[in-house]
Amino acid sequence: MKLARIAEALGCSVPDDAAGREITGIASLESAGIESVSFVSDSKLEASARASRAPALIVKKGHPVEGKLNLEVDDPYVGYAKVAVLFEDTSPPFGPSVHASAIVDQSARVDPTACIGPGTVVGADVSIGARTVVGANCVLEKGTSVGTECRIDSGVILRCRTCVGNRVTVQSGTVVGSDGFANAMENGTWLRIPCFGNVVIEDDVQIGACVTIDRGNFGPTVIRRGARLDNLIHIAHNVEVGADSAMAAQAGVSGSTKIGKRVLIGGQAGFVGHIEIGDGAFVGAKAGVSKSVEPGSKVTGYPARDLMKMRRIEAAEQELPAMIRQVKDLRKRIELLEKDLSRKE
Amino acid sequence: MKLARIAEALGCSVPDDAAGREITGIASLESAGIESVSFVSDSKLEASARASRAPALIVKKGHPVEGKLNLEVDDPYVGYAKVAVLFEDTSPPFGPSVHASAIVDQSARVDPTACIGPGTVVGADVSIGARTVVGANCVLEKGTSVGTECRIDSGVILRCRTCVGNRVTVQSGTVVGSDGFANAMENGTWLRIPCFGNVVIEDDVQIGACVTIDRGNFGPTVIRRGARLDNLIHIAHNVEVGADSAMAAQAGVSGSTKIGKRVLIGGQAGFVGHIEIGDGAFVGAKAGVSKSVEPGSKVTGYPARDLMKMRRIEAAEQELPAMIRQVKDLRKRIELLEKDLSRKE
Amino acid sequence: MKLARIAEALGCSVPDDAAGREITGIASLESAGIESVSFVSDSKLEASARASRAPALIVKKGHPVEGKLNLEVDDPYVGYAKVAVLFEDTSPPFGPSVHASAIVDQSARVDPTACIGPGTVVGADVSIGARTVVGANCVLEKGTSVGTECRIDSGVILRCRTCVGNRVTVQSGTVVGSDGFANAMENGTWLRIPCFGNVVIEDDVQIGACVTIDRGNFGPTVIRRGARLDNLIHIAHNVEVGADSAMAAQAGVSGSTKIGKRVLIGGQAGFVGHIEIGDGAFVGAKAGVSKSVEPGSKVTGYPARDLMKMRRIEAAEQELPAMIRQVKDLRKRIELLEKDLSRKE
Repeated sequence: MKLARIAEALGCSVPDDAAGREITGIASLESAGIESVSFVSDSKLEASARASRAPALIVKKGHPVEGKLNLEVDDPYVGYAKVAVLFEDTSPPFGPSVHASAIVDQSARVDPTACIGPGTVVGADVSIGARTVVGANCVLEKGTSVGTECRIDSGVILRCRTCVGNRVTVQSGTVVGSDGFANAMENGTWLRIPCFGNVVIEDDVQIGACVTIDRGNFGPTVIRRGARLDNLIHIAHNVEVGADSAMAAQAGVSGSTKIGKRVLIGGQAGFVGHIEIGDGAFVGAKAGVSKSVEPGSKVTGYPARDLMKMRRIEAAEQELPAMIRQVKDLRKRIELLEKDLSRKE
Repeated sequence: MKLARIAEALGCSVPDDAAGREITGIASLESAGIESVSFVSDSKLEASARASRAPALIVKKGHPVEGKLNLEVDDPYVGYAKVAVLFEDTSPPFGPSVHASAIVDQSARVDPTACIGPGTVVGADVSIGARTVVGANCVLEKGTSVGTECRIDSGVILRCRTCVGNRVTVQSGTVVGSDGFANAMENGTWLRIPCFGNVVIEDDVQIGACVTIDRGNFGPTVIRRGARLDNLIHIAHNVEVGADSAMAAQAGVSGSTKIGKRVLIGGQAGFVGHIEIGDGAFVGAKAGVSKSVEPGSKVTGYPARDLMKMRRIEAAEQELPAMIRQVKDLRKRIELLEKDLSRKE
Repeated sequence: MKLARIAEALGCSVPDDAAGREITGIASLESAGIESVSFVSDSKLEASARASRAPALIVKKGHPVEGKLNLEVDDPYVGYAKVAVLFEDTSPPFGPSVHASAIVDQSARVDPTACIGPGTVVGADVSIGARTVVGANCVLEKGTSVGTECRIDSGVILRCRTCVGNRVTVQSGTVVGSDGFANAMENGTWLRIPCFGNVVIEDDVQIGACVTIDRGNFGPTVIRRGARLDNLIHIAHNVEVGADSAMAAQAGVSGSTKIGKRVLIGGQAGFVGHIEIGDGAFVGAKAGVSKSVEPGSKVTGYPARDLMKMRRIEAAEQELPAMIRQVKDLRKRIELLEKDLSRKE
């Protein structure tokens, strides 16, 4: 790829004599070769940048690196994202079109530009949009729909009228549309409560591997536009994950909880049901969130508390064993003082 | 469905002139339409109940809602469960009988009323009971057996002579019969210890999506009658989960631990191996249980402690940073007092 | 199997007249039958050992059990591992060779002694080594390679040039080579960052069920020789898990963190990204590790702290509510003393 094409993607310029330079990939500063473009995401990396074999670097505006072809942008990490997609291999892993071994119900509507891998099962009334690539051994059960330019990786299972928007990635092993965990107890025995809702995944959502998203009891479970879910996450029935929120691996959200927009959630965090997490909130890794969280606030710990408060509690815990000994000592000294003083009365 | 049929399922009565009323589904008070039945699970919902478009309501005995056809029961939430199943779509997702693309070993015994989805692999000596519905792309390895009226959803994998009872649901992506995590160290290197046991899932058990249940070392790992497992749960080798116990998502149980009957376990809770959790115990979300728990007791936190005690500790933690400052202040004042007093001697 | 064969595997001797004794399996002391070999892994089990129906016992050197055929070894638990593999059923679950329903790309190189189960998809340029057994409905995407004598269980998905060594087990539902969780935010919206690396799994690694291992951004994610991963574990992009390290179920490791050799990690533990865990370290169950850990040190809790220190903090927490009351009482008594004393001035 010509350097000019990369500059164009970044919205910046390169000297005319470098525009035709051939770049074969993007790499980290350390792993870059003599035909790579790399990026300097932190000013502390300048020495590494100079030492890198990469001839071209995505750098922060006004911070060019000597001896390199500099692509100056506002945010080099964003620049990295924009250039990386240019080099991504997006060819369907099992060839174009529908593989002969895929089992596609005759009522399914599969766009002629969609690809379906070997062994994938497409049920009745399923629709698959243009340029969507479905891997091998997936199951799209009856009534599910997938929009355009999606990537449904091998082994994904979409159940119960799951509705997937456009430009969505769902990675391998993920199950969407499983029944919610809903039971009623009668005389010491559980009765199962069937679910009637589905799951709606809006445009530009990215979902990791081995995630489970349960369908709603009546209404849908919703993953809003642009949200990011890492691997092994559990989303219970009737949850809503807001637009552009990001959730790290192994987090879990209980039923009917509503997570706002642009919420950042650390790994292994958990949420009780029926609460609201305000827009722009931050939830630390491993936090156990048992109450609603105000927009923009930061919580961590279990039970989750204000981040700064929690940091103070954690620091104080370090002193706790010593303090308990000290309080015992102080009590003795007070008793002594009291005795002394009463003696003097 | 006639209202009379719903009343019959609930064991209650409706006025003769309403018995023939056509009801097309069950819904929440908010989402109900003019042909829905809904339910009032909490007396605080009376206003919503009155405002609901549902003509018929499942209500608590003695608490009818004005202007509605009231189905009076002891527990409206239980009533909801009983009526919801009447409206559930239980048609097999890939049509009746065994799909042509399923790969069924000739030694397998599949009841003629069982359904098997496309791409599902049924190994040697497998048996599948009457009216059981197996989804697409499942694998039932040699020697596994599934009873009658089960639902084995798409993508489930049953290994190593797993034995599933009747009326069991196993949701997509779940793996039953994987090898336990058993290793012995010799000279700094692990030796793998193979497992010889299997997994036994008794009648009426419900298992969520992407759950893993390891088979036992020698004897079986057992999930007892009526137990409920949510998604992404880990059950190690030789664990026993007692009858009617319920475990929320992402909980994990280490090897040989025995969980009693009707134990309630919160999400992301964890249990060390070789302990016993007594009947009727309650284990809070995210609890880390490192010791056996008495029947009927409630524990939470990490390490798990008595629930009320833990609540007091959590409350005290809030005061901890302030108290540490206070103790320092008290010490200074005591030192001053001691000096004062010694001066006076 | 003759007892002599078992003694040979253990490197110990049996009396000549017992060498021909037929043993049909290994079992626990309790479950052993009259043709079983069992093992005494703890001197406290001597009574059970004597009561066991097993005629032959693997025992600690110098601690024979009366009336039994004793196989004396340094570590009976290691002995158990060595004998158990002799009795393991390693026959391929779906028969030898490549099943007719497997879909194998013509460019794939499959060793003639390898077995591939029904419905498994083998992509372009995949290689599968000698005596490797692949289960049913797996997907090995283009460019992946699996060495010799591996066991790839049903439903495993290997993506993006995953490279698996020799004698590796990957259990069902596991996804290797999924994209890392990498995003850059521009104007409040996430940009996806594609990954270019792969996953390398070295020889003798054992991986449980429903594990997810993301491929690296540029370089590989690496699981080193002999490492053990239990079920439902998350390994993020560019992580390295050191040789002979063992990680219990539901643990998770964030991006670029490096775990040393022979590290022991408890269930549900979590690690932030970009830290190093030294060789031989111990990380307790549910620990939240937010900083690098020194070689050989033991940490637990959240945030993870030195194990002994953490135990003291936990013990102190128990006294915390009482201490807060006490401090309040002490303050009052000090105020009284101060008043008294000032009165006396």
